[in-house]
Amino acid sequence: MDAPPSRPHGSFRAGKKPQPLDLSHHYSEMTKHRVPSKMKEYYKFFQIPGIGNLAGGLPNVSFFPFDTLEAQAAKPERWTPTPNHPGDSDDSAISKKLASTTLSGDPTVATHIGVPKAIKETDPLKKVDLESALQYGLAQGYPPLLSWIRQFTREHLHPNVPYEGGPEVILTCGSTDGMSKTLELFVDTWVPEKDDPRDRPGLLCENFVYGNVLTQAAPRGVQTIAVEADEGGMVVSGKGGLEDVLANWDYARGKRPSLMYTVTMGHNPTGIVLSLERRKEIYAVCSRYDVIIIEDDPYWYLQFPSAETGEAQSRSLPAPERKPAPKPAKSSGYDFLDSMVPSFLSVDVDGRVIRLDTFSKTVAPGCRLGWITAQPELVQRYLRIAETSTQQPSGFVQSMVAELVMGPDSSADSEAKKAFAALRSNKDRANFTGWKMDGWVRWLEGLRGQYERRMNRMCQILDENSFQLKTGAFANSSDGDWGVVTKTQLFDFAWPRGGMFVWIRMHFEKHPLWHAQRTDAPVVLDGTAMSTALMLFLTRKQYLVLVSPGMMFSADDKVRSEIGWAYYRLCFAAETEERVDSCTERFAAGVQRFWRIKDVKVIEDIINNPPFVAESDEVMFGNLGTFAGC
Amino acid sequence: MDAPPSRPHGSFRAGKKPQPLDLSHHYSEMTKHRVPSKMKEYYKFFQIPGIGNLAGGLPNVSFFPFDTLEAQAAKPERWTPTPNHPGDSDDSAISKKLASTTLSGDPTVATHIGVPKAIKETDPLKKVDLESALQYGLAQGYPPLLSWIRQFTREHLHPNVPYEGGPEVILTCGSTDGMSKTLELFVDTWVPEKDDPRDRPGLLCENFVYGNVLTQAAPRGVQTIAVEADEGGMVVSGKGGLEDVLANWDYARGKRPSLMYTVTMGHNPTGIVLSLERRKEIYAVCSRYDVIIIEDDPYWYLQFPSAETGEAQSRSLPAPERKPAPKPAKSSGYDFLDSMVPSFLSVDVDGRVIRLDTFSKTVAPGCRLGWITAQPELVQRYLRIAETSTQQPSGFVQSMVAELVMGPDSSADSEAKKAFAALRSNKDRANFTGWKMDGWVRWLEGLRGQYERRMNRMCQILDENSFQLKTGAFANSSDGDWGVVTKTQLFDFAWPRGGMFVWIRMHFEKHPLWHAQRTDAPVVLDGTAMSTALMLFLTRKQYLVLVSPGMMFSADDKVRSEIGWAYYRLCFAAETEERVDSCTERFAAGVQRFWRIKDVKVIEDIINNPPFVAESDEVMFGNLGTFAGC
Repeated sequence: MDAPPSRPHGSFRAGKKPQPLDLSHHYSEMTKHRVPSKMKEYYKFFQIPGIGNLAGGLPNVSFFPFDTLEAQAAKPERWTPTPNHPGDSDDSAISKKLASTTLSGDPTVATHIGVPKAIKETDPLKKVDLESALQYGLAQGYPPLLSWIRQFTREHLHPNVPYEGGPEVILTCGSTDGMSKTLELFVDTWVPEKDDPRDRPGLLCENFVYGNVLTQAAPRGVQTIAVEADEGGMVVSGKGGLEDVLANWDYARGKRPSLMYTVTMGHNPTGIVLSLERRKEIYAVCSRYDVIIIEDDPYWYLQFPSAETGEAQSRSLPAPERKPAPKPAKSSGYDFLDSMVPSFLSVDVDGRVIRLDTFSKTVAPGCRLGWITAQPELVQRYLRIAETSTQQPSGFVQSMVAELVMGPDSSADSEAKKAFAALRSNKDRANFTGWKMDGWVRWLEGLRGQYERRMNRMCQILDENSFQLKTGAFANSSDGDWGVVTKTQLFDFAWPRGGMFVWIRMHFEKHPLWHAQRTDAPVVLDGTAMSTALMLFLTRKQYLVLVSPGMMFSADDKVRSEIGWAYYRLCFAAETEERVDSCTERFAAGVQRFWRIKDVKVIEDIINNPPFVAESDEVMFGNLGTFAGC
Repeated sequence: MDAPPSRPHGSFRAGKKPQPLDLSHHYSEMTKHRVPSKMKEYYKFFQIPGIGNLAGGLPNVSFFPFDTLEAQAAKPERWTPTPNHPGDSDDSAISKKLASTTLSGDPTVATHIGVPKAIKETDPLKKVDLESALQYGLAQGYPPLLSWIRQFTREHLHPNVPYEGGPEVILTCGSTDGMSKTLELFVDTWVPEKDDPRDRPGLLCENFVYGNVLTQAAPRGVQTIAVEADEGGMVVSGKGGLEDVLANWDYARGKRPSLMYTVTMGHNPTGIVLSLERRKEIYAVCSRYDVIIIEDDPYWYLQFPSAETGEAQSRSLPAPERKPAPKPAKSSGYDFLDSMVPSFLSVDVDGRVIRLDTFSKTVAPGCRLGWITAQPELVQRYLRIAETSTQQPSGFVQSMVAELVMGPDSSADSEAKKAFAALRSNKDRANFTGWKMDGWVRWLEGLRGQYERRMNRMCQILDENSFQLKTGAFANSSDGDWGVVTKTQLFDFAWPRGGMFVWIRMHFEKHPLWHAQRTDAPVVLDGTAMSTALMLFLTRKQYLVLVSPGMMFSADDKVRSEIGWAYYRLCFAAETEERVDSCTERFAAGVQRFWRIKDVKVIEDIINNPPFVAESDEVMFGNLGTFAGC
């Protein structure tokens, strides 16, 4: 084991928080050769009051064709929250109660918001107008939105980061962009045809993983190192666990991995929420082996306190132990946020955690807007990358999201409102205010409520259909007619503790045709064939439902061939409210029907006649490594 | 010289256009190891009519807080165009006429546009709504906008691309992103401490260059190869010209460069528009030496037909030869577009031209939206990069720009208008139409008019102040009092033929203190000191104007120290309409005053007392390699 990076002298003095570690030994060659923008010195000249700007190649704002940007936007109260602590409710059948609640929000709970062309506001952190938002800007982000996100991140989302000064933030064009920049920051491209195998970089992840990340890493020559995971997330001890992988690293395979990628709150695809205890264990090992943790949490606010109770009730199991509500050292200021399992950042003594956040699941994927939270030195390095690639995220989304969450105050003399009212003939439209921090948190609570109820309903329907009852032939006996009823479990799953997905283990090994000899090829009906067949069967007209095969999320070929075929990922987010139930019922009906197929030729026909001719079946089902941004 | 890539068999058959060349030998290792998204096969399932989607991890559109996106937007007629051919006007004093025209557009020439949440439209190329724009999308771009840009690019902007099938397009997050992806596509990072100097990649460019590109290329180890340029652009023959650089390449310096970066229409910083003749010469050499041409043209529509005439008139020089209006083989359909010097794409027989376009100068920099035009195979490779980094540009800007330029028809039954009217209580706001292609071209014509008039006025003021008249001591003679008047030219410049910049050559060598011994250091007042001093002097209260020193745009240290100090770039775009004149006058006054300084200590005081204390003067003025996105 290499020596871990040393702490700056005196950083552990009594009563002082530690300084984050210097992690520059992890930088890629390109990162090492990046210099800060030399223009920063020059920017100062623009601050000279009244300076005539013949220097910058900026088009004048009068030439922008947009005089305002406006929107009809939801108020935070559109959606109904769920309780933060299931114990708060006296209703023992909590999941049933949740599942039966009327779900649809009221579309009239809305307000009109707008960004005017120019307001008289000298504080750049308060100036939300098109003159600033649609001009060239700062690569770290639009100052008002950046400062708002910084406040949310530092004070409310992660109020307990242990290192001195706390983390910084930089905006991204969404978390795919954030991950891309992270790879550029740390990874030197490794070329199999030219480079020494011992130099190959590695990325630690769970055995099931969001495949897009592997697609990002692969062309850089990064190898995926799959770590065992159980129902609580990545396993630390024991064979195949994190400690084992790192301690017994075979250097002939490549460099011992120094990056870990993980989704910790509503894991994609497994739905796991990593507990604080498990986090501490994983962090300790990462600290010992000098591994940087990339925490990608698009679903962090979708933690479902009813899942454990609901699962037990639905399955008539003993009620789980009631856990006390968590008490963070420093409150976020919101009971909703305090009730969440905290980020790896909350235990990040070293400053080795990089967290990726996105507006994709809280506002909309089309925002292409997110942010990175990390120790300040790393954020400076991200900034240099952003300056020469994406620059700032689009001012259209930055200003509209800023207006949505920050908006002008309702006080009638706000500069923005005056500017807006002056322009618009329709004065009442100028009567808008932003969500503010309270409204933003309330919006997230409402969304969590919507998703939690969807999850409850889908899981109940699945629980009701997870067994197949088969009645054997009747026989006469002196006791009267009797029959044998067999009960086969077709699938099982844990109610997801967070996120958007139910991760179902299909019991293909209990299918009557499991490992039957195929007639169209000299092989048996194995897991991969079964997984493909059922997936295709479900798209047929009677069932008409599409699921994601677990093979898509398998971290490597071993995982894919050994257990990947056994899983499907079911998403309860994409469909319309009213269709979630019916889709789940059709899924259940399709699975039940599939288990009644007794002729191997029927299965073969399903496999050989997909709903359309694929250009390559092998590509289609063999190695699905990615799932477009979701 | 290496053998140029060979053409596919039969591609030159009679009557057939050639196929674009296979340029895959230029790909970076990362590009070679990128595979197409495997999800494309899977996408087909989503097309099954009525399919229930439990597969994709997409949030449902009902959870997006934006119910509409709207804007007050200019109509194309807001600005007044200038003539496409100066010969069209009988007024010989064309520049004076242009310069005196009232400039400000009418802000009431506006319309209200809007994107509704969801419209019933089955054609994805016509469906502009939030349900599609704010969802996960295609990395090549939002289908309606992509198809509109594709049409504009292929049919109107570049109707004469010589290879079979013509070019394809892919959207970017602006041209900095486009260039970043281009470097990723072609360049293997070269590390000075580790790699063989002979493997170093190179980038050809003019001796003065948009510095941001060098900042992008440098951390990849790319060396800049400065090619001589004259008043017509990059020089082909003779010492230091393109042919010389490539033919006499010293392989000890690195690989013979296979990439060229150039701004060809309103060059930044020199304002040159590269003629079709020069393009053909440069292209022939690039084809011979297998160089890929990256044409970055944010100012392409700002070509100023009045510049040559105006310059001659302003300086009382003979009128330039009247050139016949260009007649492209195939018309763009618009006289305005036909009047433009065409892109390198118009001579791109090989398919070796990559063109970067942006909405930054036609709509707004904050869009972070642009596109790449290139042969289809290259566009496919860009797509793979986009899929794993930026994904699509923000749906906010994509849908708003789509609505602006495509908008619904005025027919009352348009789906978008119905959806919009149903939502909005204020029905008259639903009465909007888009610009359409005609309106878009009209908008560009109007903008060209605005910029051309600004250019004319700035250049006239500069011409009026380029000489310093000094009257010597009076003396008595029998003929009466007489004096000696000396006339010193302080600067010269060509009226820019395009773009946003005047590129001024300062005659520091004619300053009374040129190469005077400094008192604060054992050196003389050289060009760098003079350039810095005047630049700082101009920011003082009397003049209060900021210019960009030519050192910022010098392609390498040699250019910077030999001639970079002699130039300033003046931008006539950034300031408000009414301030362009006064800023230019203050610039002229400051220059005049600067030339009257006779005490070296005054210059030293200017240099040593900038308007604020810079953290490092060396960083500030020594090597300014970049100018934030502009």
